[in-house]
Amino acid sequence: MASTHILSAYDEELQYLTRRISEMGGLAEQMCTDAVRALVNSDSALAQKVIADDVGLDQSEREIQEKAIITIARRQPVAADLREIVGSLRIAADLERVGDLGKNTAKRVIAVQGGVPRKLARGLEHLSDLALVQLKEVLDVYVSRSVEKAEAIRLRDEEIDAMYTSLFRELLTYMMEDPRNITTCTHLLFCAKNIERIGDHATNIAETIYYMTTGAQPEGERPKDDTSNTLGAANS
Amino acid sequence: MASTHILSAYDEELQYLTRRISEMGGLAEQMCTDAVRALVNSDSALAQKVIADDVGLDQSEREIQEKAIITIARRQPVAADLREIVGSLRIAADLERVGDLGKNTAKRVIAVQGGVPRKLARGLEHLSDLALVQLKEVLDVYVSRSVEKAEAIRLRDEEIDAMYTSLFRELLTYMMEDPRNITTCTHLLFCAKNIERIGDHATNIAETIYYMTTGAQPEGERPKDDTSNTLGAANS
Repeated sequence: MASTHILSAYDEELQYLTRRISEMGGLAEQMCTDAVRALVNSDSALAQKVIADDVGLDQSEREIQEKAIITIARRQPVAADLREIVGSLRIAADLERVGDLGKNTAKRVIAVQGGVPRKLARGLEHLSDLALVQLKEVLDVYVSRSVEKAEAIRLRDEEIDAMYTSLFRELLTYMMEDPRNITTCTHLLFCAKNIERIGDHATNIAETIYYMTTGAQPEGERPKDDTSNTLGAANS
Repeated sequence: MASTHILSAYDEELQYLTRRISEMGGLAEQMCTDAVRALVNSDSALAQKVIADDVGLDQSEREIQEKAIITIARRQPVAADLREIVGSLRIAADLERVGDLGKNTAKRVIAVQGGVPRKLARGLEHLSDLALVQLKEVLDVYVSRSVEKAEAIRLRDEEIDAMYTSLFRELLTYMMEDPRNITTCTHLLFCAKNIERIGDHATNIAETIYYMTTGAQPEGERPKDDTSNTLGAANS
């Protein structure tokens, strides 16, 4: 009886971590959706909400970390159980960073009050849709623990990177066409970079789920198609 | 005797973490110094070295994380000892991020092969000097555990933020003066942002050291003077 009781309390601790991480994921996703909506609609009130939400997300990460550490010290888990807890720590850290990226995007809303040109807004929304689908799907995989789906998500990050590189070029073109676009487009460049990095964090989470489930790191080089870092000064 | 032996092995585990973190700090600092040098001197070979160094830094973070988790499970530490290990995990994560920022700066060297205008190079070097002094000093405080110095470093981040905001404005001015500067200056904006964020990570580390030493979070709002997020489109 005693042993059953201990196991069940332990299961509850693991379930607590899983539930809190899913909650964090939902909040991080909502913050990023709201941030892009605030940006394209010049909605300062919504931007302020995103900035306020980030306090709760940071707090959640800290609580998950504390709970995970207490569980490790109390239960001395090994193998799959230990990977489960270490994985929780890593995923919570990635989600906290996703929230920071949403917050940074929201903070720039006030700087682009002149409004975002329609074509650029569509580009940002499209990039954001791609990144948030990745995030949403990886959070589903966190529940289902499908190794195949984790692999598939990891390989799809290059689509986001290619879209980001294309948007980067477009923003440069706008700036070159009219210097009055420079300040706004500079902030939009940072916003685009923020969104692209949400995709990177979704990929990190996919790799962590792979590790939690199999005990191994995924094989093969991580695809990397963001070539904007090396876009030269000519013709771009 | 047995108890002394156990205590001593435990001390060795803590010392191992301290030593590995100091090593990570040294490497992260060197990577960032090299990245800025590579940028202002258009030195692709040095940039490649920084990119290669990042693999080792990532590996170190993973090893520190594994060792920390094993130590928590084996020793079930409480109070100051537990904070020591949790702090190590947090600092290693911050240093890994600092390395990523150095790597991202290095990757942009190839895009600004046209060279960095002298005045902007001086601005970037100055910003980098400020951020790297913060990083170096916080790594010294990690050894000395001086709460007063940790507090002082935390309060000094606003100097870096103010310098970053000034450089941000200067880069926008260059772009407006001549559209041919736009691509290079865009990459330099991202580099400046990378360097400014090194200062943020030094501040995080200072806060972690404060927590490790006192068990409390530092009091008072963290100073924040990076106003570039909200620089409006007019006159900047």
